[in-house]
Amino acid sequence: MTATAPAAELLDTHRELLEAATHALATREYFSRYPESPSPRVYGETAAQEGQTAFEQAQNSAFRALADQPGTGTEVGAEVSPYGPTLGARYPELDVDAGIEAARAAIPAWRDAGAATRAAVCVEIIDRINARSHEMAHAVMHTSGQPFVMSFQAGGPHAQDRALEAVVAALVEQKRVPESVTWEKPTKGDPIRMQKDYRLVPRGVALVIGCNTFPTWNAYPGLFASLATGNPVIVKPHPQAVLPLALTVSIARDVLAEAGFDRALVQLAAEGEPVEGADGLAKVLACHPAVSIIDYTGGPTFGAWLEREGAAAGKLVYTEKAGLNTVVVDSTDDLKGMLGNLAFSFSLYSGQMCTAPQNVYVPSEGISTDEGDLSYEQFAEKLAGAITRFNSDDARAVEILGATVNPDVRSRATDVPGLAQRLGGDVLLDSRPITHPNYPDAVVAVPALIGVDAGNLPAYSQECFGPVAFLIRTDGTPASLDLLRQTVREHGAMTASVYSTNEQVLEDARDAAMDAGVALSENLTGQIFVNQTAAFSDFHGTGANPAANSAYTDAAFVANRFRVITSRRHV
Amino acid sequence: MTATAPAAELLDTHRELLEAATHALATREYFSRYPESPSPRVYGETAAQEGQTAFEQAQNSAFRALADQPGTGTEVGAEVSPYGPTLGARYPELDVDAGIEAARAAIPAWRDAGAATRAAVCVEIIDRINARSHEMAHAVMHTSGQPFVMSFQAGGPHAQDRALEAVVAALVEQKRVPESVTWEKPTKGDPIRMQKDYRLVPRGVALVIGCNTFPTWNAYPGLFASLATGNPVIVKPHPQAVLPLALTVSIARDVLAEAGFDRALVQLAAEGEPVEGADGLAKVLACHPAVSIIDYTGGPTFGAWLEREGAAAGKLVYTEKAGLNTVVVDSTDDLKGMLGNLAFSFSLYSGQMCTAPQNVYVPSEGISTDEGDLSYEQFAEKLAGAITRFNSDDARAVEILGATVNPDVRSRATDVPGLAQRLGGDVLLDSRPITHPNYPDAVVAVPALIGVDAGNLPAYSQECFGPVAFLIRTDGTPASLDLLRQTVREHGAMTASVYSTNEQVLEDARDAAMDAGVALSENLTGQIFVNQTAAFSDFHGTGANPAANSAYTDAAFVANRFRVITSRRHV
Repeated sequence: MTATAPAAELLDTHRELLEAATHALATREYFSRYPESPSPRVYGETAAQEGQTAFEQAQNSAFRALADQPGTGTEVGAEVSPYGPTLGARYPELDVDAGIEAARAAIPAWRDAGAATRAAVCVEIIDRINARSHEMAHAVMHTSGQPFVMSFQAGGPHAQDRALEAVVAALVEQKRVPESVTWEKPTKGDPIRMQKDYRLVPRGVALVIGCNTFPTWNAYPGLFASLATGNPVIVKPHPQAVLPLALTVSIARDVLAEAGFDRALVQLAAEGEPVEGADGLAKVLACHPAVSIIDYTGGPTFGAWLEREGAAAGKLVYTEKAGLNTVVVDSTDDLKGMLGNLAFSFSLYSGQMCTAPQNVYVPSEGISTDEGDLSYEQFAEKLAGAITRFNSDDARAVEILGATVNPDVRSRATDVPGLAQRLGGDVLLDSRPITHPNYPDAVVAVPALIGVDAGNLPAYSQECFGPVAFLIRTDGTPASLDLLRQTVREHGAMTASVYSTNEQVLEDARDAAMDAGVALSENLTGQIFVNQTAAFSDFHGTGANPAANSAYTDAAFVANRFRVITSRRHV
Repeated sequence: MTATAPAAELLDTHRELLEAATHALATREYFSRYPESPSPRVYGETAAQEGQTAFEQAQNSAFRALADQPGTGTEVGAEVSPYGPTLGARYPELDVDAGIEAARAAIPAWRDAGAATRAAVCVEIIDRINARSHEMAHAVMHTSGQPFVMSFQAGGPHAQDRALEAVVAALVEQKRVPESVTWEKPTKGDPIRMQKDYRLVPRGVALVIGCNTFPTWNAYPGLFASLATGNPVIVKPHPQAVLPLALTVSIARDVLAEAGFDRALVQLAAEGEPVEGADGLAKVLACHPAVSIIDYTGGPTFGAWLEREGAAAGKLVYTEKAGLNTVVVDSTDDLKGMLGNLAFSFSLYSGQMCTAPQNVYVPSEGISTDEGDLSYEQFAEKLAGAITRFNSDDARAVEILGATVNPDVRSRATDVPGLAQRLGGDVLLDSRPITHPNYPDAVVAVPALIGVDAGNLPAYSQECFGPVAFLIRTDGTPASLDLLRQTVREHGAMTASVYSTNEQVLEDARDAAMDAGVALSENLTGQIFVNQTAAFSDFHGTGANPAANSAYTDAAFVANRFRVITSRRHV
């Protein structure tokens, strides 16, 4: 292993951090490197203003930072903020074959640098991304439509912690293979002695396909898992969420170059206007024979295609698609806490999260609470009221709801009665449009609630992305748990939660979640929400149901991204 | 986790062993639990005779041991020993749907028993298999055609060590996930405290598809990796090598039942006569929606189909197929040792090993040795002479060569001139038929050598399974290494070796092997052979070239066979 001088310095700089993070990953205790508060006390008095300015300039400078990629000579980029403004950033279009050739050429030095050096360089990249969290927050906000604080947290420090987690998971996995051993087999005479050297080799070129709603959070685990295991990475952002990944890629390339490595280890493949009849860029890249690893977040149709065709072609494919996130309400001793927690979970980013709850099962005979028994109808009213109250102040509400990200979501948010009618349900709470005080063109909508009977399975057995949830009337909690099992097994889910004061019901819910292959949150009534997971402790996804074939970040997510080549000889 | 009383006892019994084996797997030092010598001093004075008797009876008792599987009522089995005798063993045909239903029903208790208990039960199974190694040796010999001592070693203790390795790798991987953690996030006020429990769940039903030549050695890693991670296993043996796996399955079922678990956790799916136009049993099982994991060893056509279709259906598929095992001869300071080592590698089991060398690259200008420079022709003569001498004593030779396993191998062995002519090569050494003193019907053949020019790529770029190797005349060692790179990348290889006295050549060979994704043995001149790998130290396969998509046994081989389901709540 040959660490360049700057890389050796990074090894020293980040050694302690990597040890602490390794310990946390093993115990799954609380760990976070990157402070989630955008406060000036944390990020510095001038950080917010500098971030704002940098973002405004990034719309012009993004191109320059990537100009040294092998390009076609064409500029691409047509991002329009869900808040209204056109971003105006342009990006050099990658010459796919030249880019892949450059990526391949970069492999040997990166491979031979060894796992520890790669991890240190990756940490440096993430630290440098962290330093630009305010700029990144604006970029995430104006591509995803997330509200500002969420853009800062989920697009910044939380994503960075997930990136670090992937780096650490990759490092741990690689360190498990010794560099060398003297193997000594006893025989009747002298033992047979052999030296065996184990060299880690990457799979090849990795592809990361980003999504619109979480451009960094969902791209970083795959990006850093692949990079830390020695694979060069081509990042293909969603056409409407390029800037956050353009910033990421340009930072990565700078750090790599400063550490003595090839910038081509991380490249951006921004997509031009779709060409009628031609495959999209994601498909072109995914089908390229040199691409060995694909990480994907996005819609289930293309995700399923990737799983099928990518895997059939011998590529490793890690997907996160969509599912039916489920809440089972049985009983509670903290009605207020439960309603507040649910109202927040529905409202945050208008439910445009792969983890946002959608299907709420409630027994038709109602539930018991610390405020007395509630019929299904009474509970529906309470929940609708909680959502309404939570979003009653427009100026405050927009800072939770953000903006709807695309016409598909908007169409559901703006015609809830039509949607309910099509699905055969009842409007329990219509969506309330809010005019954003700063962005009048943004479509901001308070979440709606639609009531359906459990028998009306088609109504709620497909993902309804955005600010609409279903309150499903069931024959009782056992029936609710059966529906959880059945629908999640078949359609997948990223999250599930249960509210009950009955220990047996909780035990049954754990069993149902285990059978369905989904993680379970129990009785969340405070400041932890079902749609949020913590790096180093909570797995994001399980890989055990159709919503995602992998999890951030377990051993299976990293162990196959590199292989071991042995050489052995007598000594 | 709920260990039954007998299972708890097994946990105690095998705790120390599992710790020692875990240490060995981490360091990759020498480790073996199961003695490879069939000597009476090791296995007991009466073991050989008892094994012989048991084998003779097994031909009748195999059925009885599996009679409690859900069956169709039909008996199957048509094994004929490559040594001549018809085995006569019959097996109850598995009712596939009922068998899979039984397997699924067995999951919860096995899953909930926990990783440590599962590992202990698996060790007990392997120990009990080990106690019947002599019986197994006969079963392997008379299904694979391996010679007796090899059948004992490779079919017995070596396979058992690989089984143990898989169990330990699975245990290590599962133990990396803590059962529970208290997660404490600091806040301005009281910290947020949550308990998070992590439950391991199996993927589903696992399928192991065995091969004819190494019925146990190649089936055990997948079988025990899946079982130890909580998955019930259906074992589909090769129709001509059922008995070794029938013994294995019946032992496993007995131990499972004694430990308080369901016998249906391991089932045998012996195949009946092929039905014209119908899919074979392997395909039927592989396509069953309940089957989530497939381990396969066998021909590349069906292996590629499985990789493609199995993966496309979201199943985990681990394959070992075939490749072009390669030797690069550059120079040596121990000509005698090199020739002897190569002669053994070609002769052992008549080259019917997925690891046996096939393509030997020799520079046209010849090689330098401690016995002077040798031209290509002189080296060819020396190597042919070494093979001939090594097999000169018929009675001794058959104990190395074994019997040819099927008509395909036999056709090549018995018409080497015809083969050479078809391929455009020259016969450097014709195969010599030997009459086995005890089994006159066996076809035993001393390996042949065919000379070809490197330019005649089609001649040597497909697997030529059995007792034929190619001596390929190249433009020099750099050209030899280029051919290694090129052919192994394209067609795969399980093994590669190099002979050179030049450190730079060895370094180049390591690089070529790394680029090709194949393990390298250097200058083997003693009692270690390129076609043998040691459990706990040598990976078998790399998963980095087309010969196999996985390796015995690395983390990637086990990490994805189970998933983690979290439940979290405030405390």
